[in-house]
Amino acid sequence: MNDTMKVVVYLKWDVSVFVPTDEQFLRFRDTLRARSVEADIARSEDEFLRLLPTATHVVTWTFRQEWFALAPLLVEVSTPAAGKDYFRVSPPRGVSLSYGSFHGAIMGETAAGAVLALAHGLLIPPSGGSWPRPEFARRARRIAGATVAILGFGAIGRTTGKFLKPFGPKIVGISRSSHPEPEWFCPGDETASVSDLDQILARTDFLVSFLPSGSETDGLLDARRFALMKETAYILNFGRGNCIDEAALAAALRRGTPAGAVLDVFREEPLPESSPLRSAPNCLLLPHSSAFSPDYLDLFFDEWLSRH
Amino acid sequence: MNDTMKVVVYLKWDVSVFVPTDEQFLRFRDTLRARSVEADIARSEDEFLRLLPTATHVVTWTFRQEWFALAPLLVEVSTPAAGKDYFRVSPPRGVSLSYGSFHGAIMGETAAGAVLALAHGLLIPPSGGSWPRPEFARRARRIAGATVAILGFGAIGRTTGKFLKPFGPKIVGISRSSHPEPEWFCPGDETASVSDLDQILARTDFLVSFLPSGSETDGLLDARRFALMKETAYILNFGRGNCIDEAALAAALRRGTPAGAVLDVFREEPLPESSPLRSAPNCLLLPHSSAFSPDYLDLFFDEWLSRH
Repeated sequence: MNDTMKVVVYLKWDVSVFVPTDEQFLRFRDTLRARSVEADIARSEDEFLRLLPTATHVVTWTFRQEWFALAPLLVEVSTPAAGKDYFRVSPPRGVSLSYGSFHGAIMGETAAGAVLALAHGLLIPPSGGSWPRPEFARRARRIAGATVAILGFGAIGRTTGKFLKPFGPKIVGISRSSHPEPEWFCPGDETASVSDLDQILARTDFLVSFLPSGSETDGLLDARRFALMKETAYILNFGRGNCIDEAALAAALRRGTPAGAVLDVFREEPLPESSPLRSAPNCLLLPHSSAFSPDYLDLFFDEWLSRH
Repeated sequence: MNDTMKVVVYLKWDVSVFVPTDEQFLRFRDTLRARSVEADIARSEDEFLRLLPTATHVVTWTFRQEWFALAPLLVEVSTPAAGKDYFRVSPPRGVSLSYGSFHGAIMGETAAGAVLALAHGLLIPPSGGSWPRPEFARRARRIAGATVAILGFGAIGRTTGKFLKPFGPKIVGISRSSHPEPEWFCPGDETASVSDLDQILARTDFLVSFLPSGSETDGLLDARRFALMKETAYILNFGRGNCIDEAALAAALRRGTPAGAVLDVFREEPLPESSPLRSAPNCLLLPHSSAFSPDYLDLFFDEWLSRH
């Protein structure tokens, strides 16, 4: 065995796909064994704390500041989570934190499917009795030729854009930092910075946010910006909830602009029963589930193994 | 003017996108004018009947058998409709009927979006209180690696398969006649005939039907075949309603296999209030709207012009 490396997996969560099955862990362990690296799984916090003193690498949803003192050999703490807001710890010198970046493979499907299904009236069906053909005819449209603005144009946003591109929309990738254009861009597609947001909103049909949390994104989408949007536009949020002024969005939906919203993330989660979004019209609420898939941890383990 | 050709457009319908706007008709007329061909639009049946005696080509949703006698110069009756069941007339010798074949550009988006949104729990959300994370975790999955069987693998079915392919499913194209494999097929994709349907159903995650009506397709999907499906499988129908035994499907959904259905077409339309499908669980009912889009007639006119 490679006695310089010892991996401890401790993944507990109340969401089934975030907890490794025996099969998933054994596949991970066997791949490491073939490299002469030992891996163990902890199914409880006690078990995890017992394994920490010999761990060089841990894979976990949770890590407390005081646990670093129990892990003198530790060099890396990894989490499947994508959000840098995830760990609220300051690692000692020599210990790094690492995050998953495989989520686009799942969330890109969810977001692309949501945009397509919204466009054709399926996701927020128009009301109008038991055979609402005139109402569907007024709402339905193609993605081909529509403008899809992707707010937060990192790995997940780019995967979503790439998934949508074959359907023929114009893609506007908006990010805080400037990045090179993806190779799948076509003439008419563009990258832009958040300072261009106002003029982009006025011509956007689908605004899809993957923005992370943080003071820079806080309340970015507010009453003033909702009023700039087309009355046929939709807002989708699969990033973090803090970028949306939720009371302002509920009021905007009630006024009819934007036409609808699909929200997977919220300022407070679970979304409080008293949230004005719960009674807002044309608003599909999801329980922060856009990355759910039975192979979530397979994708994570494969990525982790390819990095180590 | 080319006095050998005179086009009369008569497109009346209670669905807004099936009636040309002035702008849509003028664009069509101007393109024909540039070819020295005259085109007229009839906004009423009376007007249409007055124009028929000079028409060589008509573009219409409706044509009655007795109208042929009023149109001695007629050589072609075109309809935007895709279904060959659409015209119930027998044209005299020398007059052909033609149908639209542009629908895949719209219906492919609708069907692909429906499959993706279903897969991620968005289209038929699981029930489970106001923050149903465990329920979403049990239902959501990726299209990547899933098997999508497309029943009716003509132009619309193929466009849908092509749209879904970049997401990574295995595609099984089922048709009554044998066709060459599309160029976008990957290893693992296959074409099959309806006689293979039973064994395909047993391994299908999403069964998407675009079958036309007719005695050959009548009741193809019945209680016996629903029982062959995976309990996690979904049925989608965007073709014609006659291929499904609706009472049997409602009962199968109540038993939990297949897991859900998205139905856009029915044996009787509008779907009767008394249909057992109206109260079936996990069943999204649409009003035969999968081809709706504001540019429906632009696509049709462009196709018509490219053929003439």
